Amino acid sequence: MATAGKVIKCKAAVAWEAGKPLSIEEVEVAPPQAMEVRVKILYTALCHTDVYFWEAKGQTPVFPRILGHEAGGIVESVGEGVTELVPGDHVLPVFTGECKDCAHCKSEESNLCDLLRINVDRGVMIGDGQSRFTINGKPIFHFVGTSTFSEYTVIHVGCLAKINPEAPLDKVCVLSCGLSTGLGATLNVAKPKKGSTVAIFGLGAVGLAAMEGARMAGASRIIGVDLNPAKYEQAKKFGCTDFVNPKDHTKPVQEVLVEMTNGGVDRAVECTGHIDAMIATFECVHDGWGVAVLVGVPHKEAVFKTHPMNFLNEKTLKGTFFGNYKPRTDLPEVVEMYMRKELDLEKFITHSVPFSQINTAFDLMLKGEGLRCITRTDQ
Amino acid sequence: MATAGKVIKCKAAVAWEAGKPLSIEEVEVAPPQAMEVRVKILYTALCHTDVYFWEAKGQTPVFPRILGHEAGGIVESVGEGVTELVPGDHVLPVFTGECKDCAHCKSEESNLCDLLRINVDRGVMIGDGQSRFTINGKPIFHFVGTSTFSEYTVIHVGCLAKINPEAPLDKVCVLSCGLSTGLGATLNVAKPKKGSTVAIFGLGAVGLAAMEGARMAGASRIIGVDLNPAKYEQAKKFGCTDFVNPKDHTKPVQEVLVEMTNGGVDRAVECTGHIDAMIATFECVHDGWGVAVLVGVPHKEAVFKTHPMNFLNEKTLKGTFFGNYKPRTDLPEVVEMYMRKELDLEKFITHSVPFSQINTAFDLMLKGEGLRCITRTDQ
Repeated sequence: MATAGKVIKCKAAVAWEAGKPLSIEEVEVAPPQAMEVRVKILYTALCHTDVYFWEAKGQTPVFPRILGHEAGGIVESVGEGVTELVPGDHVLPVFTGECKDCAHCKSEESNLCDLLRINVDRGVMIGDGQSRFTINGKPIFHFVGTSTFSEYTVIHVGCLAKINPEAPLDKVCVLSCGLSTGLGATLNVAKPKKGSTVAIFGLGAVGLAAMEGARMAGASRIIGVDLNPAKYEQAKKFGCTDFVNPKDHTKPVQEVLVEMTNGGVDRAVECTGHIDAMIATFECVHDGWGVAVLVGVPHKEAVFKTHPMNFLNEKTLKGTFFGNYKPRTDLPEVVEMYMRKELDLEKFITHSVPFSQINTAFDLMLKGEGLRCITRTDQ
Repeated sequence: MATAGKVIKCKAAVAWEAGKPLSIEEVEVAPPQAMEVRVKILYTALCHTDVYFWEAKGQTPVFPRILGHEAGGIVESVGEGVTELVPGDHVLPVFTGECKDCAHCKSEESNLCDLLRINVDRGVMIGDGQSRFTINGKPIFHFVGTSTFSEYTVIHVGCLAKINPEAPLDKVCVLSCGLSTGLGATLNVAKPKKGSTVAIFGLGAVGLAAMEGARMAGASRIIGVDLNPAKYEQAKKFGCTDFVNPKDHTKPVQEVLVEMTNGGVDRAVECTGHIDAMIATFECVHDGWGVAVLVGVPHKEAVFKTHPMNFLNEKTLKGTFFGNYKPRTDLPEVVEMYMRKELDLEKFITHSVPFSQINTAFDLMLKGEGLRCITRTDQ
């Protein structure tokens, strides 16, 4: 392309300081260096993680920064050593990578790449420790290796999944983070059998994606658990057959679930990050075969506590990161699930705004309205 | 047989009260009732569980009682409705059963039979709530449905595994409880891959059986963990390549294991029942793919505590009961493993005494000497 090897000037939404509205600025995006790819972002969604690091409460603030990590785009140019991607390829950036060379990448059982595992404090490229974004020569920091709130961004090749170019990027862009996390937690880790009973704790986008996985796996009973009764109506669209609000009961919610399922659910997935929900998720599964999967990110000081006899009664407890998907190897097939109409993404996309109104996406998420808001960079 | 349908008078070792030496008595053994089988016991071993209920500390004492649950015998006669066994069949009694009809038995994933799950307080048959043992008309209680410290005993058909009649009962009798528990914990639950690193916590008979499983699975490094340094020499015979004594270190043993294995072991099996060992077993496994399996029975007040991030880093925690073996379905194949010389049982059998000296077996176990002492009822 005509832009290859040159600095590109384009629009980006810059977070200059914690909690302040993003500002649309003209940034310079340097060419990709070794093992890097410059991507033209067409659509980017907003996830709680962006909001969390934008608020920067209790964190080391890294500003000014370009946030964003759920997106779909097209390769503009590639740096030295990049052989798997060429300009024009359609890609999903992912906040965790797959180098294909470390012990984790070589293990069939893990997706926790040693080289490209998420690092929320690093605001620069791992190759040279520099940022590829500047405004009038002043560096602007990256975010989790993706920084998709920009018309162009530079990403390590290990953090890009090459997908079917026929897949609509305005839909599949939501597979970059939360939806794959929830979906994979059920399909790859909990693995419910056809006809089984599955409980999902927390009915945000990740929990509903976990529910979508239960529906796809053929679960016959899907119990949604959430403190907000308004979530039930929406959850019905995702296959929710029963709703339990822990506030409606005096006994612990795990006991409620065990009673209503004659001994416990076959599988349970936790998508809230609250330690009480984590314990309930484990304790509500059936003895003998129950599997509980933790997805939500807990508080630093949280302690998981339970009686060890729960394990000896043959309950299993696992956790997952990004739904156990290896981004480069596995995401293309998740996109194909959507293309084959096995996976429904449309119902997750409740709002859409032009790039110039990206702060509206933040407002919607802060108010808890909708599931995913897509930002169109071409508008 | 000539004895079928009649009361049999024979010798049994009776525990008249807690902690007092067993007394060899002549007992009357009633014929088996519906779904029951009368078995001539040829060999019976002693397990910690017998000692625990013989000591009856902190329990509701059930005396007089005939203990014993690791044994090998031959069917003498069968009660109404028993179709799978006939007189002359070789069997292993098992303290937990398999009715083949409940939800657990029908699940491929569980061996926790609803009908015949271990019940340590019940001293009678489940069919009619009566004992089959009497001395001068006075009932003597059963123990975990097996009571193998008797020349003849009556057992529910669901608690008997029919095995290859060519298998030497004086060897395979040890598969009734602890050895299958440890072996199955590794082979059925931890499932180490060939070449992997496995840690075993607790090097008693169960732990060494778990180690035997790791050896059979082709583990390349097997780390034994025990507070008693004398256990290491014996463990070497079971494939132990490294020994760690937590007392030799100032830091928690899980940290020692993580350091010596470059991030953690692939699989770990806990066979002590101590809560600190359970936590260490979980925390010493590698992120991404580590699996920890709990086998030891914990104290009633024990609380398992860990940071939930350990799960989110893709460590799995499971527990097992009787090594996840369904006794009737699976034990015959474990016996075949021994017959094919894949599984070595001889090294577990360190002592042998005639039935008249059964108290010697208790003494050996209380002193921590040896692994399994076989009692020969014909002597």
